[in-house]
Amino acid sequence: MELKEIYAPIQEDLDRVEERLLSLSRKQFPRLAPLLEHILPHTGKRLRPALTLLAGRLHGKSTDKLIAMAMATELFHTATLVHDDVVDDSGVRRGQPTIHSLWGKGAALLLGDYLFSLSADLVASTRNLRVIDIFADTLKTVSRGELEHNLSPAEDRRKRREYYRWIGAKTASVMAAATQSGAILGGALEEGVKALGDYGQKFGLAFQVVDDILDFTGEERELGKPVGSDLFQGTLTLPVLILLERDPESPLARGEENREKARRAARHLSHSPVIKECYTIARRFSSQALDALEALPPSPPRSSLAALAQYNLERRK
Amino acid sequence: MELKEIYAPIQEDLDRVEERLLSLSRKQFPRLAPLLEHILPHTGKRLRPALTLLAGRLHGKSTDKLIAMAMATELFHTATLVHDDVVDDSGVRRGQPTIHSLWGKGAALLLGDYLFSLSADLVASTRNLRVIDIFADTLKTVSRGELEHNLSPAEDRRKRREYYRWIGAKTASVMAAATQSGAILGGALEEGVKALGDYGQKFGLAFQVVDDILDFTGEERELGKPVGSDLFQGTLTLPVLILLERDPESPLARGEENREKARRAARHLSHSPVIKECYTIARRFSSQALDALEALPPSPPRSSLAALAQYNLERRK
Repeated sequence: MELKEIYAPIQEDLDRVEERLLSLSRKQFPRLAPLLEHILPHTGKRLRPALTLLAGRLHGKSTDKLIAMAMATELFHTATLVHDDVVDDSGVRRGQPTIHSLWGKGAALLLGDYLFSLSADLVASTRNLRVIDIFADTLKTVSRGELEHNLSPAEDRRKRREYYRWIGAKTASVMAAATQSGAILGGALEEGVKALGDYGQKFGLAFQVVDDILDFTGEERELGKPVGSDLFQGTLTLPVLILLERDPESPLARGEENREKARRAARHLSHSPVIKECYTIARRFSSQALDALEALPPSPPRSSLAALAQYNLERRK
Repeated sequence: MELKEIYAPIQEDLDRVEERLLSLSRKQFPRLAPLLEHILPHTGKRLRPALTLLAGRLHGKSTDKLIAMAMATELFHTATLVHDDVVDDSGVRRGQPTIHSLWGKGAALLLGDYLFSLSADLVASTRNLRVIDIFADTLKTVSRGELEHNLSPAEDRRKRREYYRWIGAKTASVMAAATQSGAILGGALEEGVKALGDYGQKFGLAFQVVDDILDFTGEERELGKPVGSDLFQGTLTLPVLILLERDPESPLARGEENREKARRAARHLSHSPVIKECYTIARRFSSQALDALEALPPSPPRSSLAALAQYNLERRK
C-alpha cells in the first residue's frame, strides 16, 4: 500500500500540519527563513505527525491541539536530525546538503535548539500536563541515549544489546511519544494509551532496523545519500553488527581506514544472508507492533497503523 | 556586599539546590558522571537559582516546586553555556577546559541537549502551566536570539542596537524567566510578577554589560580565561563597539588577523574612557532594575535583589 492510501483517514489534518509547518518559515526573521525552507520541506514521510494524528483519531475527532502536537513531533524530530548531522559531520541528507555544511556548525546547533523550542511551545499550547511530561521525558531519553552511545567504547558499539538500546532511545521513543500523546489528546482510555505507546515503540524499532538495512541495499538515488554512508561515518548498525559476529576480521570493521576495501565489503553485504536475518528481526518487531493494536477496536485509523507496519517492511527508501 | 551576605535570606534553599545538582551527577550512567561533575560545580555564582529563590521568597515560603525551578534555571543556563562554547569554539571557561575541548563537540552538543531536557523535566514537575510557558518561551528567545546574531552580517554586529537585542535575548531573558517563575511559584500577584520580570530583564542587561567590560579589565587569574578572549573569538561586545564608533580603523576590528596588534589595543582599551562609558550604561540598566523593585513591599529578599544590582557594578569577576 502507498503512504497516500495509508494516510487517507487523516489526510486533511496532515495537510493542515504541512501548511502550518511551511508558514512557520514565512513568519520568521528574514535570515532564518532560508534555513527553515531548506530543512522543513525535506524531512520526508511526515511519519511522526501521521502517527500522532492516527492515534488521536482512533478515539476522537480532529482538534487544534492534536494538530499542534503533530507539528511538535515533526519539529522535534527535525531538531534531532539537525543535531545528529552536526555530531556525525554528515554532508548530505535526503539528497540535500545538510544545514551545517551550508551555514556552519554553529548555526546548525542553534537551529536545532530553536526547533526544540518551537516544538516545546506547541506542546505547551496543548495545556495538557501529561503530554508535556511525555515531551520532557522523550527529550531526556533521546539526548541521554545519543550521549550514552557517543561516550560508549568501540567494543560496546559492536554489541546488539547496545544497538537496540540506542535505537530504542533515538528512534522508537519519539514514535512512542507521538502515538501516546495523540492517544491522550484524542481522549483514549488508559488501555488505549498504553497499547498505542507499545505500538509506537515496536514500530519505531522495526522502522530503524529497516532504515539501517536500506543504508546498504537501497539505491543511492532513492536514499539521497551514498550507500553505506552510516558505516563510513563510523556508525555501526545492525547489518554490520551481524556480519562482524560472523566475521570479526571483516574490512567493514575498519571502514574508515581502508575505504575501497570496505566499500567492496559493503556491496557484498547488501547481497548476503545478513540482510535476510535483519529483515527477520524487523518483522519480529513489526508483529509485536501489530499485537499491540489488538487491544484497540477496529477502525480506519487502526487499519492504517497496521498497514504502516507492513509498508515499512516493503519500502525502498 | 559579598554574595554570601546577599544570599543570606535564601542560603538554606540554595544549599538544597546545590546538593541536588551535585547528586544529579551521581544518579547518571557511569560515563556521563565525569561530564556533569566537570560542568556543574564550575558554573559560578548560582545567580539564576538565587534570583528564582529571592523572587519566590518575596511572596511565599520555600517549597519543593520553588527548589525544582531554581535547579531548572541553573541547568538551563549551563546547557546554553555548553552549546555556546561549541558555537564559539572556546577552549577555556572559568579556568577549566570546556566540555567540547575534553570530550569532543559531539558529546558537548548532546550534553547541552541533555541538560535542556533535565531542565524541562524539573519545570514540568512544578505542574504550573504558566511557568511551563515561560520555559518554552525563554528557550525560544535564547536560541532565536543566538541564531539571529550568528546569521547577522559583520556590519550589523558592530551596531549597539544589535548588541542590546542580542544580550537581551541570551542573558536578560533567562534572568527574567528566573525571577518571573519564582514570583509565580511564590504566589505573587500579577503586579509582583511583572515587577520581578522587569527587574530580571534589566539586571540581566546590566550583568552582561559588566561581564563584557571585565573581559577587558579583569585579571586573567580571576576571570579564568585570557583577557579579551571574546574579541579573539570574533565576538564584538560593548567596549569594542564604542571604541569602533570613535575609531573605526582600530586594530581591534580585525582582532583575528593581527593578534599582537589587537592585544595591544585591548590592553589600551582597558584603561580608556570607553570603560567608564560602559559602566555608565551598566549603571543605567541597574537603576532601571532598582526602579522595578519599587513596586514591591520592603523585605529581606527585596533588599537582596537591590544589593545584587550594586554587587554587579562592583564585582571583579
